[in-house]
Amino acid sequence: MYFLSIVALVAGLVSRAYAEEAVKKPDIDVFTLENGLQVVVVPQRRVPIVTHLLAYKVGAADEPPGLSGMAHFFEHLMFKATKNHAAGELDAAVQALGGSHNAFTTHDMTVYHQKVPPSALEQMMAFEADRMRNLILDDETIETERQVVLEERLMRTDNNPGGILGEAFGAALFVNHPYGRPVIGWRNEIEGLTREQLIDFYNRYYVPNNAILVVVGDVDAETVRQLAEKTYGKVERGPDLPERVRPTEPPARTERTVTLKDDRVTIPSFYQAWVAPAPYSEDRDLNDALAVLGEILGGGERSRLHRRLVIKDRTAARVYAYLSSDRDYARFAVGADPINPEALKAVEAAIREELEAVLQDGVTAEELETAKKVYASQFVFARDNMMSRAVQYASDLIEGGTVDELDDARERLEAVTLEKIQEAARKYLLLDRSVKGYLMPADNETAAD
Amino acid sequence: MYFLSIVALVAGLVSRAYAEEAVKKPDIDVFTLENGLQVVVVPQRRVPIVTHLLAYKVGAADEPPGLSGMAHFFEHLMFKATKNHAAGELDAAVQALGGSHNAFTTHDMTVYHQKVPPSALEQMMAFEADRMRNLILDDETIETERQVVLEERLMRTDNNPGGILGEAFGAALFVNHPYGRPVIGWRNEIEGLTREQLIDFYNRYYVPNNAILVVVGDVDAETVRQLAEKTYGKVERGPDLPERVRPTEPPARTERTVTLKDDRVTIPSFYQAWVAPAPYSEDRDLNDALAVLGEILGGGERSRLHRRLVIKDRTAARVYAYLSSDRDYARFAVGADPINPEALKAVEAAIREELEAVLQDGVTAEELETAKKVYASQFVFARDNMMSRAVQYASDLIEGGTVDELDDARERLEAVTLEKIQEAARKYLLLDRSVKGYLMPADNETAAD
Repeated sequence: MYFLSIVALVAGLVSRAYAEEAVKKPDIDVFTLENGLQVVVVPQRRVPIVTHLLAYKVGAADEPPGLSGMAHFFEHLMFKATKNHAAGELDAAVQALGGSHNAFTTHDMTVYHQKVPPSALEQMMAFEADRMRNLILDDETIETERQVVLEERLMRTDNNPGGILGEAFGAALFVNHPYGRPVIGWRNEIEGLTREQLIDFYNRYYVPNNAILVVVGDVDAETVRQLAEKTYGKVERGPDLPERVRPTEPPARTERTVTLKDDRVTIPSFYQAWVAPAPYSEDRDLNDALAVLGEILGGGERSRLHRRLVIKDRTAARVYAYLSSDRDYARFAVGADPINPEALKAVEAAIREELEAVLQDGVTAEELETAKKVYASQFVFARDNMMSRAVQYASDLIEGGTVDELDDARERLEAVTLEKIQEAARKYLLLDRSVKGYLMPADNETAAD
Repeated sequence: MYFLSIVALVAGLVSRAYAEEAVKKPDIDVFTLENGLQVVVVPQRRVPIVTHLLAYKVGAADEPPGLSGMAHFFEHLMFKATKNHAAGELDAAVQALGGSHNAFTTHDMTVYHQKVPPSALEQMMAFEADRMRNLILDDETIETERQVVLEERLMRTDNNPGGILGEAFGAALFVNHPYGRPVIGWRNEIEGLTREQLIDFYNRYYVPNNAILVVVGDVDAETVRQLAEKTYGKVERGPDLPERVRPTEPPARTERTVTLKDDRVTIPSFYQAWVAPAPYSEDRDLNDALAVLGEILGGGERSRLHRRLVIKDRTAARVYAYLSSDRDYARFAVGADPINPEALKAVEAAIREELEAVLQDGVTAEELETAKKVYASQFVFARDNMMSRAVQYASDLIEGGTVDELDDARERLEAVTLEKIQEAARKYLLLDRSVKGYLMPADNETAAD
């Protein structure tokens, strides 16, 4: 109430600050500024810190064909000079506050975030609002940063066997949807991006009506509203963007493999994945079921694959299974590191057997209950971490969740049944329609031999 | 000369009929109408027949992402009613003439052609010029034809194991360039194409300045020019189209396989391919060399793979190798049908050995000479066939060849050397960076087992 009166007093702007009705969930306030910026506030007052996160609804899957790498390129360019600040000023400010800051890019969003004392929230908002529109995109900046991005690509992908395989694997898994494109971009396309193309991209996507602000921590909604109005509120709304409609993925009808044999690999690894439904798709209940199945199959030391391969067969040093979700599709994956190259075939065969068992008999009630408990504790942990909570809310909204659905993960988890798990496995984890990846030592034969 | 004067007399249009200087090669006249239509005339007077071919410079690789199938959809729609002709009138006219006609779509072009007596050339041009701009694209026509196209897709791909595998194979071979997209389109995208999208496509691409007319047969250039002016010449030029720049393909760095196990397969088949340079790319000489290598490896009964697998090992019933070229890339492929499922591994291993031999030692002078002779006779044969000659000229121009380069295939072939073949193989046919396809009986194990 205190902050509300200050806002009313100082700015006289409160009533017209709402472009849509504010929504309040327990612990969460959500409102939208007049210029279209959506704001999510999550008070969490245990320590005097706030996480300030701005997520743009643009990622690698939004890049025009042939211009891959643009979204991630901006993750770099956004730290360069603006009309009002030299490059490095934001970094210096965060350092001086004893805070931290960073950015990341996915196929669906580009995210900038800082962790600072609450007193610095306005300053962070001012920096963020400034670089939303005032970036100086000159040739020198672009060329310098292009070299940095190419170097990053070299380290992460081109000089890294796992990176090479992962990139080819993604392209084999998604043949039509742009999730098959590496987030960092194809090398020759990064090399070819022009200043004009980058400026077009910036003007199109870096606008308040294409962003979500999430503030978590020692702050209340009225303060955030007031500060956001003072900073972001002054940025002009951009042209309306069309709905984000991406090409859909045709159903997989073949088994595919991707193999990389490389000198630098000493122990082979095996990885297998399927396209799965998105968390806010029609099959959202099967997305939930597959997340739980990932936990049951390869989530920890009690998981089926661990008990089978690491403990019983002793053929693998490490196993895993998980569902990773994006806006349009998820990926269900299983994998293992065989203890030596000779064990690869046994590992692959055992994983197949374990998958067949799930397809045929499902999982047990006990496994389901245990997995739910593990997940529930992960939710508690995630909610306790300001940064992961902020990222979760931004990605939920960007993946198609509504404000009402934030924090529904627990309820969704509870709704998973034995029947749903088997239904999901039978619908999405078809044995001869997956993609398999093999990372192999150079002197070994390929998996197909 | 006679025809020239008639044109001058009747139309008074001759001098302004040339948008650019006419070019004359032995047997070939090339000129461009004012509205941008490029015309290639090839007199070939042995029989009183002409082949009339109109190629639009648009194919499946030009479709916007998510709208695959548009180019091929028009191959169907173009036979429906126009403002001036009912559906079926062209067909009836060609039938009445004892002629034939058809159409086809590739990744780079959409081609309509008729074979008729010379006296019917003007009529064919009039039909073709009419449907270039006067198609009636109403909902009923589109929905009816959509069902026909989906049925075609069902027959060719969805209900055909070889079709399913071929489609997945293409997507595995080209991960970024739209050549990875099936020419007929992905099923769900064909289903989703809207009338507005189709009309936009038609208005953009079906214009005289985006087409090449090729007339081969019992006719001379002046006649063609006169008739083309009377028919096509009246069609208004469309907006200029930007250069056809497609996303490029990143270098392959992994080995990939695509496997389909299906009840309907009785004998397995093996197919292996690489991305190769286009015929008018910087590496055009290596494109030529790979075409010759295809012949040497698997072009006939004297080829290396035939002698090894069919005659010596007796493991395969059929082998082949070839280079197929498109505008931006070519595909080099080898393949074999093993005599039974058990022979598959031996077949694959023998092909690998034969490829290793080429990479290490190249081919022999005798093989090169024989292959050149075979190719040379194919040229003679192709030149003798009006239709194949017309298609060749259209595709040469669409793939980036200049008018001066038409009919250069023989000279290009002559320039292929033993060194070039080995250089091409070593640069493009890397053993562990190919895509392999396996078509397998359902009860057999996958190739990776």
